[in-house]
Amino acid sequence: MRNSHKMWKQIAQEAQALRDETLAEVGVNIQIPAQLSRNVTDIPDKVLSASSARITSLAPQEIITLASERKISAQEVVQAFLERAVIAQNLTNCLTELLPQRAISQAIELDGRLLDNSTSLGPLHGLPVSIKSHIGIANRPLSSGYCAPFHSRPHPDADALVVQILTRAGAIVHARTTEPQSMMQLECASNLYGVTTNPYSNILMSSGGSSGGEAALIALRGSVLGVGSDVGGSIRVPAAACGIYGLKPTSFRVPTTGWSSTPPGADPIVTVLGPMSVSLEGLEIFMRVMAAAEPWHIEPAIIPLSWRAVDITPSREKPLRLGILWHDEVVKPHPPITRALRELVDKLSNIPHVEVVNFPPYKHDEAWAIASSLYFTDGGEADLAVMAESGEPLLSLTEWIIKDNPGVKKLSRDELEYWLEEREEFRMEYSQHWNKTGVFNKALGAWENTVDAIICPVAPGVATKHNTAKYWTYTAVWNLLDYPALAFPVGKVDKTIDVKENRKRFMSHLDKESWKLYRPELFQDMPVGLQMVGRRFDDETVIAILKFLEQNI
Amino acid sequence: MRNSHKMWKQIAQEAQALRDETLAEVGVNIQIPAQLSRNVTDIPDKVLSASSARITSLAPQEIITLASERKISAQEVVQAFLERAVIAQNLTNCLTELLPQRAISQAIELDGRLLDNSTSLGPLHGLPVSIKSHIGIANRPLSSGYCAPFHSRPHPDADALVVQILTRAGAIVHARTTEPQSMMQLECASNLYGVTTNPYSNILMSSGGSSGGEAALIALRGSVLGVGSDVGGSIRVPAAACGIYGLKPTSFRVPTTGWSSTPPGADPIVTVLGPMSVSLEGLEIFMRVMAAAEPWHIEPAIIPLSWRAVDITPSREKPLRLGILWHDEVVKPHPPITRALRELVDKLSNIPHVEVVNFPPYKHDEAWAIASSLYFTDGGEADLAVMAESGEPLLSLTEWIIKDNPGVKKLSRDELEYWLEEREEFRMEYSQHWNKTGVFNKALGAWENTVDAIICPVAPGVATKHNTAKYWTYTAVWNLLDYPALAFPVGKVDKTIDVKENRKRFMSHLDKESWKLYRPELFQDMPVGLQMVGRRFDDETVIAILKFLEQNI
Repeated sequence: MRNSHKMWKQIAQEAQALRDETLAEVGVNIQIPAQLSRNVTDIPDKVLSASSARITSLAPQEIITLASERKISAQEVVQAFLERAVIAQNLTNCLTELLPQRAISQAIELDGRLLDNSTSLGPLHGLPVSIKSHIGIANRPLSSGYCAPFHSRPHPDADALVVQILTRAGAIVHARTTEPQSMMQLECASNLYGVTTNPYSNILMSSGGSSGGEAALIALRGSVLGVGSDVGGSIRVPAAACGIYGLKPTSFRVPTTGWSSTPPGADPIVTVLGPMSVSLEGLEIFMRVMAAAEPWHIEPAIIPLSWRAVDITPSREKPLRLGILWHDEVVKPHPPITRALRELVDKLSNIPHVEVVNFPPYKHDEAWAIASSLYFTDGGEADLAVMAESGEPLLSLTEWIIKDNPGVKKLSRDELEYWLEEREEFRMEYSQHWNKTGVFNKALGAWENTVDAIICPVAPGVATKHNTAKYWTYTAVWNLLDYPALAFPVGKVDKTIDVKENRKRFMSHLDKESWKLYRPELFQDMPVGLQMVGRRFDDETVIAILKFLEQNI
Repeated sequence: MRNSHKMWKQIAQEAQALRDETLAEVGVNIQIPAQLSRNVTDIPDKVLSASSARITSLAPQEIITLASERKISAQEVVQAFLERAVIAQNLTNCLTELLPQRAISQAIELDGRLLDNSTSLGPLHGLPVSIKSHIGIANRPLSSGYCAPFHSRPHPDADALVVQILTRAGAIVHARTTEPQSMMQLECASNLYGVTTNPYSNILMSSGGSSGGEAALIALRGSVLGVGSDVGGSIRVPAAACGIYGLKPTSFRVPTTGWSSTPPGADPIVTVLGPMSVSLEGLEIFMRVMAAAEPWHIEPAIIPLSWRAVDITPSREKPLRLGILWHDEVVKPHPPITRALRELVDKLSNIPHVEVVNFPPYKHDEAWAIASSLYFTDGGEADLAVMAESGEPLLSLTEWIIKDNPGVKKLSRDELEYWLEEREEFRMEYSQHWNKTGVFNKALGAWENTVDAIICPVAPGVATKHNTAKYWTYTAVWNLLDYPALAFPVGKVDKTIDVKENRKRFMSHLDKESWKLYRPELFQDMPVGLQMVGRRFDDETVIAILKFLEQNI
């Protein structure tokens, strides 16, 4: 039993030293300007070589196509993204390590295969991908935002299944990204690596979390496709905070074997892995590759669903119906979020055969009561023990989620059963609530003309100032319901329009707390994201609808 | 609080009186011979009218076709099956009630629709179906094998979702069937209705359970298609005991909304509803109708999988590979079971491109340790309380499963979490065990040439003498793994061949107990069933393989 205050600091030093070694292996001398503006997203293009800047500006499919057609080598691509990732690390502290040796040798092998034509090319040929660090990489440390396991957990023998599938499809893992202490933060601070910041508001704001390293890295194009995880908003909140795309798929579609958490079916709220990308297309490419690998033969919790072709093109006979959830009746979103929703609705109204209706929330306060009771059914005991092992202190948001949350307490078996039944009943009721956006055809016994998807906020606001992301329900409700949810960027804060409302009345004390946090000048120019939500297993539909909207707006 | 010894007897009297009233409403005077032979399966044809005997001899699809083509009226069909069900009740005590008024009026309505051609016909047009009694019927009592809830539970306002789907497809629910105390028996005895017996060995043997009423009724053709439920063998054991077909589907394919149990996703081992029938075709018709109704829009736990067309026709390039699990290394099957397996294997060897390999069991003793720990995570507290409420005594097999089972105890949250993780790990390991029947293609990252299905015993023996069905693992292992499993009839016990082995060595004390129970004369002519098991969600494959085998043997 190692239990000294010194211990965690030593581990953190070792972790950071290991990270820095891998960065040094990239072998570039990056000169970051000493004085940085608040928004640092333009820095990489200024300090990179023209060639590396051009390569890293490409979209995922462009990279794959160019590499497959030998117009660019996988090695060049990987080198460019490694360099850009070094810059991203210097700007936002988003990495736990780079994998230059592994990535370059894989790239050389892929380039060789292309020359001798010995094997067919994978659908991700030559594409660098980044991976959140609690997803195992062979012979590398595996952690979960805590110091002790980084030190004591044996290094995995093999890559996690999701990484194996990506690699077999021709992708090259080049970077591993930060995650917060406990993994249960919607920001990204740990004692191992410190704080990951937002490239749009360096130092001042969080990248969001828990997949905050991915979001910061991808926003700076140190990666164009990465893998995050989400049990309460951890893909969508950082995606929105950093102006990129992120999909929380329905559970049991993306395999989790080889990550640092419990086995896939054992948790009352299922954590899912999902893609984050500079483009919507990146998310779809990832999901398609996952399904095509038929991972259900290896990980039996996965549902054998292929990635289905869905046609959502609206017509007079079959309009596209979208429900707008303006607010959840608990916390009113900040002005830029509501404006973004309103502007989107205005644009949607101009598309033929697209119908927009209001979607009222259904007991979102109860949703949080259920979800928060099921997140730490041991009352956080295991987490506290892991922290005690190395003596690492609880960070502000870990303390908040484990200790200050009324729902979080050690449950008895009876209490656990109670909350599981509440969960199932809430799922039934919400499904019926969704059905009621349509009409019941008695002869068929089916609801018709229900909304095809919901559009709603990702969070009450845009990126948060550090240690203030304490309202999860806009994202967590969809985890509880296991609905696919996609965060997508729609614009920026404009302090001249998004002025602070002078509110006297609030829906709840949480609403008031949230309102206090909004300051137009502070959030000026920060990215604004929204969330598109589908019914369970309608992952394909959600992506297809957003694709259609982006083409028609 | 009603807690007198008298109470449960009163409730049972009321329940039986209600049942008898509904039987009387059928309005036939059935003369059952006073002296019955052991095997009573020939009685119905002797006492029914020629017309009713002919109608009830038809297969499910024949009935649907004849009724749809107006060669027979739905009313005639329902009347014939009601009459035959009355006989079945007199022979085996398999009913909790008949629904003559509802069934006849539905039949008249269906016949009317056919005349005025006003609506299209459903795929089950005119087919009577029987329903296990814990599945709700509007305005009728809803129980679960216990006296108290029969009395105190409000009658449901609507049919269970599975019944709604069947009805909308044109089926007519005519009978409700018995189930045992606690529902957790592989036999069928309750204080409410007494003991359901096996039509092949009247009085002496159990129909099997818990869906024992369905099995006895269907074996006597008082129904040709029914709905049972299964969490440890409750569809397959009675199906095998009574010489019929029964499918335990993968979970979350058949909706359970409106039954008397907990919500669908809340239990650590999921109880499933599934079809029981006189024919394999009957099972497939049921599953097809369920998927076509897209019940996932109403019950969100259901996976949106259509009933898929699978082609398993073997060829030189793609042989059909079947694994034979001869025994589970814990309890050796009785001679008739092993002979049936051996004879089937001999026949399979003559079919071109069918390969038969031995499938070794994987830790089936551990499977039972996990499953039995997860069946009653409250240690049976809730069940004991329900029994105490009416003062009903614990029947022998209820006592055995709740009190004499080392796995059954009230778990703490930590213990529950431990067993849930054990469950997930066992699922992973078994999946890998199945993979290893094939070879790993490293380039594709996929296992190839794995077995397509397993064939194994349903239980150590055929039907059991009352109160002796105490070894569940041959069926329960597939519930733990959530693999689809199909019980199918293959023959009869022949005491001249299936002689008792003179064993001195046993695999376990359970093996010895089971061996002691076998007496060739006692089981002479009892039906022998086997079990076909597929991988998770391979329900279609399991049915397709058995269909192919039946056509080619």
